[in-house]
Amino acid sequence: MSKVKPALLRGFDQEYLPQEQLQFNALVDLVRRNFERYGFLPIETPSAELKEVLTSKGGTEKEIYALARLAAGEDEDEAATRGALRFDLTVPLARYVAMRERELAFPFRRYQIQRVWRGESPQAKKGRYREFYQCDIDIIGREKLSSLAEAEIPSVIYSAFREMAIGEFRIRISNRKVLKGLLQQHGVADAAAPAVLRALDKVDREEKGRILEDMKKEGVAAGAAGELLKLLSEKRTTDQTLSVLEKLSENEMLKQGLSESREIVNAIRQFGVPDSHFAMDLSVVRGLDYYTGTIYETTLVKYPELGSICSGGRYDDLASHFTDTKLPGVGISIGLTRLFSKLREAGLLHAPARTPAEVLVTTMDPKYLERYLAMARTLREAGINTEVYLESAKLKNQLAYADKKGFRVALVAGETEFDKNVVQVKDLQARTQADHALDQLAPVVKKALQAKTEKG
Amino acid sequence: MSKVKPALLRGFDQEYLPQEQLQFNALVDLVRRNFERYGFLPIETPSAELKEVLTSKGGTEKEIYALARLAAGEDEDEAATRGALRFDLTVPLARYVAMRERELAFPFRRYQIQRVWRGESPQAKKGRYREFYQCDIDIIGREKLSSLAEAEIPSVIYSAFREMAIGEFRIRISNRKVLKGLLQQHGVADAAAPAVLRALDKVDREEKGRILEDMKKEGVAAGAAGELLKLLSEKRTTDQTLSVLEKLSENEMLKQGLSESREIVNAIRQFGVPDSHFAMDLSVVRGLDYYTGTIYETTLVKYPELGSICSGGRYDDLASHFTDTKLPGVGISIGLTRLFSKLREAGLLHAPARTPAEVLVTTMDPKYLERYLAMARTLREAGINTEVYLESAKLKNQLAYADKKGFRVALVAGETEFDKNVVQVKDLQARTQADHALDQLAPVVKKALQAKTEKG
Repeated sequence: MSKVKPALLRGFDQEYLPQEQLQFNALVDLVRRNFERYGFLPIETPSAELKEVLTSKGGTEKEIYALARLAAGEDEDEAATRGALRFDLTVPLARYVAMRERELAFPFRRYQIQRVWRGESPQAKKGRYREFYQCDIDIIGREKLSSLAEAEIPSVIYSAFREMAIGEFRIRISNRKVLKGLLQQHGVADAAAPAVLRALDKVDREEKGRILEDMKKEGVAAGAAGELLKLLSEKRTTDQTLSVLEKLSENEMLKQGLSESREIVNAIRQFGVPDSHFAMDLSVVRGLDYYTGTIYETTLVKYPELGSICSGGRYDDLASHFTDTKLPGVGISIGLTRLFSKLREAGLLHAPARTPAEVLVTTMDPKYLERYLAMARTLREAGINTEVYLESAKLKNQLAYADKKGFRVALVAGETEFDKNVVQVKDLQARTQADHALDQLAPVVKKALQAKTEKG
Repeated sequence: MSKVKPALLRGFDQEYLPQEQLQFNALVDLVRRNFERYGFLPIETPSAELKEVLTSKGGTEKEIYALARLAAGEDEDEAATRGALRFDLTVPLARYVAMRERELAFPFRRYQIQRVWRGESPQAKKGRYREFYQCDIDIIGREKLSSLAEAEIPSVIYSAFREMAIGEFRIRISNRKVLKGLLQQHGVADAAAPAVLRALDKVDREEKGRILEDMKKEGVAAGAAGELLKLLSEKRTTDQTLSVLEKLSENEMLKQGLSESREIVNAIRQFGVPDSHFAMDLSVVRGLDYYTGTIYETTLVKYPELGSICSGGRYDDLASHFTDTKLPGVGISIGLTRLFSKLREAGLLHAPARTPAEVLVTTMDPKYLERYLAMARTLREAGINTEVYLESAKLKNQLAYADKKGFRVALVAGETEFDKNVVQVKDLQARTQADHALDQLAPVVKKALQAKTEKG
């Protein structure tokens, strides 16, 4: 038979071996558990939406994948003519809330962990793929939303990343009104603000001369450009930043931003996030057009090159394209596929069990099948995931399978053992083994697995 | 601003409210837990694959969605020219195993729970959608696979559906060689076999006259057709079925099928599946072309109209289109989206918690924010998911939110309570309330939630 080469599409290639998938699933479970701890509700939305829904905010058409039939069918297929794959989780959320406004309790706290698709150039080095998981939380108010919601978000991030145990991290926040006020005060025209902020956003990774030049091109006076750059690039504590802004605040926008920032910094502390893990940081500059209050980035202190691993902000109106109801919100997003690949590269992921069933019952002598199966049943009933080796193979080959798949414990028994009512319990990592009474099987195996966990 | 109507594409419309999503997630978790209990490993594959990979088995092009760019981009995008969405999880599994043959331990036991896409006419009544979750397990051998693997599959299904507690179910099995042998013995030409089996497959839902006529059209003699129909439609126990076959078995194929069936029925019993929950049943007729040994269907005894909720079988070679290595396997598939929708319709789903955080800390007086937050922290640290109401609103409105979202317990405290170091614990379902000492908060709330769980 002529063969087809088994291969993956470029950018649709973050496919894992089972042991990596287990690590990825553990990460998803951790994130999910933390979101649920704070009362966020899960939703999932369809992969494909109406094109007009996806493009309602405009501007991203080039990155959107539309659907088409591979071969013409008899029926008209709406999805093939009017459908396209979502490129983020925010537009589907807006559509979802607009459709289900009356059924939802507001503030609506949702989390969503799903794949999105973007026709960007894939760059494995940067962790940029065409298909990847995003993981979003948002709190959506109806007509109003307290600034306390902005302060709660860092406490959720803090809880999740602390449990991830991936080393020191810092949640860096700034405020869109502060930034806008600073620009106004330095004579930057409103029209030039987005470009100026884009230039300033590179403060961590580009040389200063280049940034100053970019600002000059946007009509910012040399002195003002220098002051802005200094303001955004100097390292300060949260309280130092607030003092600096205090002294500067001459215009209304900046005053309002400062007052908001004070309140939110204070509340973040009340929410239990220590200053070691968050900071007001003027170098956080993002999404000027969309965000209206607090903005967030999260970085790993020892791995700044990974960039922000969790970002977001406060916005005024989620779904203005779909409904007249004003829906102010605040949210953050984690690019889970990218985060996973970066953590793996940096060696920051803990090696979990390589198989969800860590015990293998070997089957040396087929005539004892019923006994082997009874052993497995006993263990499963005690909450221990257990696999039985079902092929007819030499014990040596069964143990080679156990090693390759990564079992921690193998059970061996034949006539000699069954005659004495014992089973040989093999610790596959320590390479030790001992006979134990069959009627003590579950506690013995449980102990063997626990000992491992404590050591590992 | 002109609005876009927030709507869903036909067939891409199984989108749930949060409380339904929680139910669905509980179903997925249950299935996952059961598969892991038996040593199945998780994998996920990309949503889009190369067209030639998806169509390697041929025949389904009309149902496949290809990808295209919504607007032309600068770069060439392989996915937009050569990519299409998967329509099942079997072809991606074949491609996966062929690609990673050397890294996997065989027999390779995998589970996969992901969405698939099919351009069929959506029919909500039949539970047929264009986007839906499938949930597959397979055991793949390299070069060989013991028939014990065929016997283990029903024990995994038994474990999962029993835990689902959706009422009495029966795993019905048959054997492809038995069916083939029976057809040969009744003089059905090999070429007519698929059509005859399609006719016989309707035994549960079509009148006999029609089925006999269909068989006659395929050249089956009237007497033979009647005998076949009788054989497949009469109700018998497993042992009765085996006896009937024993008496009939004249040709080699049937003898071999009977011998295999005996062995597998015996092993299924050894695997701990009681005869109340499985049966050898000749009316199970499916996938003659693909399956080569045991075939499975699973029905809810009181809801036969739901059809098979879990089906599959043994096959000789998974990935012959991709590799020369022979990969015999056995697997089953659950159409999770369809199953969920049917179970919900039939009222067979247990109502889970409507929010993953079942405790709401109300915030009657903003000046106590820090105390409210401390209460939440105490509960979360005790493993109790807890939400804090952060908007400024009257207590009445906060409690209305609690009801709408489905919290079970609300905590209320203001000056009166804090002065006495107590908190009012409201049971929102029983509509009762009592003051409790603040330092007893976690145990009191835990008890309140447990009491509910036992009652509910």
